[in-house]
Amino acid sequence: QKIYHIAVIAGDGIGKEIVPQAQAVLEKVTRGKADIRYEDFDLGAERYLRDGAVLPDEDLDRLKQQDAILLGAIGDPRIKAGILERGLLLKMRFELDQYVNLRPSKLYKGVVSPLANPGDIDFVVVREGTEGLYAGAGGSIRRGTPQEVATEVSINTAYGAERVIRYAFQLAMKRRRRLTLVHKKNVLTNAGDMWQRLVDQVGQEYPDVEREYLHIDASTIFMVTEPSRFDVIVTDNLFGDILTDEAGAVVGGVGYSASGCINASGTYPSMFEPIHGSAPDIAGKGIANPTAAILSAGMLLDHLGFESEAASIERAVEDDIERSGSTQRSTEQIGKDILARL
Amino acid sequence: QKIYHIAVIAGDGIGKEIVPQAQAVLEKVTRGKADIRYEDFDLGAERYLRDGAVLPDEDLDRLKQQDAILLGAIGDPRIKAGILERGLLLKMRFELDQYVNLRPSKLYKGVVSPLANPGDIDFVVVREGTEGLYAGAGGSIRRGTPQEVATEVSINTAYGAERVIRYAFQLAMKRRRRLTLVHKKNVLTNAGDMWQRLVDQVGQEYPDVEREYLHIDASTIFMVTEPSRFDVIVTDNLFGDILTDEAGAVVGGVGYSASGCINASGTYPSMFEPIHGSAPDIAGKGIANPTAAILSAGMLLDHLGFESEAASIERAVEDDIERSGSTQRSTEQIGKDILARL
Ligand SMILES: CC(C)[C@H](C(=O)O)[C@@H](O)C(=O)O
Ligand SMILES: CC(C)[C@H](C(=O)O)[C@@H](O)C(=O)O
Repeated sequence: QKIYHIAVIAGDGIGKEIVPQAQAVLEKVTRGKADIRYEDFDLGAERYLRDGAVLPDEDLDRLKQQDAILLGAIGDPRIKAGILERGLLLKMRFELDQYVNLRPSKLYKGVVSPLANPGDIDFVVVREGTEGLYAGAGGSIRRGTPQEVATEVSINTAYGAERVIRYAFQLAMKRRRRLTLVHKKNVLTNAGDMWQRLVDQVGQEYPDVEREYLHIDASTIFMVTEPSRFDVIVTDNLFGDILTDEAGAVVGGVGYSASGCINASGTYPSMFEPIHGSAPDIAGKGIANPTAAILSAGMLLDHLGFESEAASIERAVEDDIERSGSTQRSTEQIGKDILARL
Repeated sequence: QKIYHIAVIAGDGIGKEIVPQAQAVLEKVTRGKADIRYEDFDLGAERYLRDGAVLPDEDLDRLKQQDAILLGAIGDPRIKAGILERGLLLKMRFELDQYVNLRPSKLYKGVVSPLANPGDIDFVVVREGTEGLYAGAGGSIRRGTPQEVATEVSINTAYGAERVIRYAFQLAMKRRRRLTLVHKKNVLTNAGDMWQRLVDQVGQEYPDVEREYLHIDASTIFMVTEPSRFDVIVTDNLFGDILTDEAGAVVGGVGYSASGCINASGTYPSMFEPIHGSAPDIAGKGIANPTAAILSAGMLLDHLGFESEAASIERAVEDDIERSGSTQRSTEQIGKDILARL
């Protein structure tokens, strides 16, 4: 049996509650097939409040040795916005070069969408993960005075955009062969024009994939009026962030939305996490839905090559949702119910 | 009777079809009360294709002499994205210092929302209109090569943010006294932190206004799951663009969404326009819905001090929608039906 080293960063709030459920599922489906060794990383709000450390070099170095990372959620209302997000979550995505932020959205049978006529929703957003407005470039002058100027710089490279665009086309070939570029090229003319040119260029290699372009504002409309039109969406870091949260809502809540922060060239480990946050309002109550974390564990397995095991997790989740719909269950109960279907 | 000079920029696509309906409404409600003199401006795709002019200085100077501007829509698929948007529409917003981009969203009785349970939707987005990522700062190096780098710079000033924040608080005082700041301060820490500090600071002067903060991604969720929670939203240029299109969808389509690009200090004329675009796919067919343009004309009148006339336009529109619901009518018919109710 091959040994796999998986870093576990349960993180903050409900992260701590949902991650054990995801681990239980991982354990069960890989039994006899893989020897998974977990290493818990003490990262997140508590660590920061205790010793001021956000992501020390030693931890980052140890993370780099792993085969994959399973993450719960990061964020705590006691800590100024940005410190953990930029210093821990985004730092990992950037330092580990997780350039494909993969976010599938599917309306499962039994889930109630807030839309009156949701239709068949099944698409994947390929969000760029290592540049754009997330680069952390920018600054302030005259902070706190009436003359303050604050800038944020979106840095976009052909190198960075082309690789996710290529990934998106490859994904589209395995799916319904339809790719939508989302940007705001009528305003962000430098970056937008580059993205469009690269999509057109890479698209030459994938003549069977139908392409369309939508502005981010128009996309938020279609996400509500006609989400079934989407197959693969490729977009930048910020637009991907926004669109996938809206998508999460449309498929019945971010509680069902998994994601992978993927280093597709394999130089560093990829990370798998629910797209929802640490939900401090419901943390500690044992009522958080672990489904997104469990689906994220499924994506992790798929990434490690356990495709049929990953598929079985998704099937178990689908069955569970179809059976139980939106009945209130505890975190543990949902975990148990899904385990029972594996 | 006081004379008012109103610039009319019908613009492109359906703009040409809906603006006359809005003018007919303006005429009727101001008859005997104001002497409105229209000046048509030949700006938009046709002008550009004819003589390459987008917004010549002479036109801009003449625009500055007007009391207000009524705009249809700008944008044409034959023209590279950005040329008309940046060179005409945004240039007007910036040069005329229209810093308050005011966008009400209301679910009218009789309109079918795509949401299963929309609730009572009635909020206003106060979008900053003269800075942020729309500043047009940024550029490219090594364009067209694999080493291309494209940047977009979001420029945010305390001066610019504070004045829209103050406007938003004043508006909240006339409404349900609830203000939501939307930003992404956990990632865009420079600009986000400045906006939050200014909201907190100006908020001291409005202790009766309840404040909340939401990330843009979370806002797109609430817009679908609980839009009735919003009263006044204040946000930056790009987030406002995105959120108001989603809001338009949620209240049954951008066909009902009016907006004002307001220079609240009165140094230059304000501009009123539907939030929808030129809709080239349906242009020329006489089927575009003029309601958003008519409501925009109402906002224009309100801005000029004709509050009761503005209110009568909104009532007529409400009545018309409640009566006719989503029955298919031509542009002219909708215009006539609304006129008949005035
Ligand atoms: C927490 C935050 C920094 C993060 C992001 O903006 O990427 C989150 O919203 C996400 O989508 O994973
Ligand atoms: C056409 C475009 C430049 C414009 C914007 O982004 O502001 C439009 O989307 C709007 O919302 O008025």
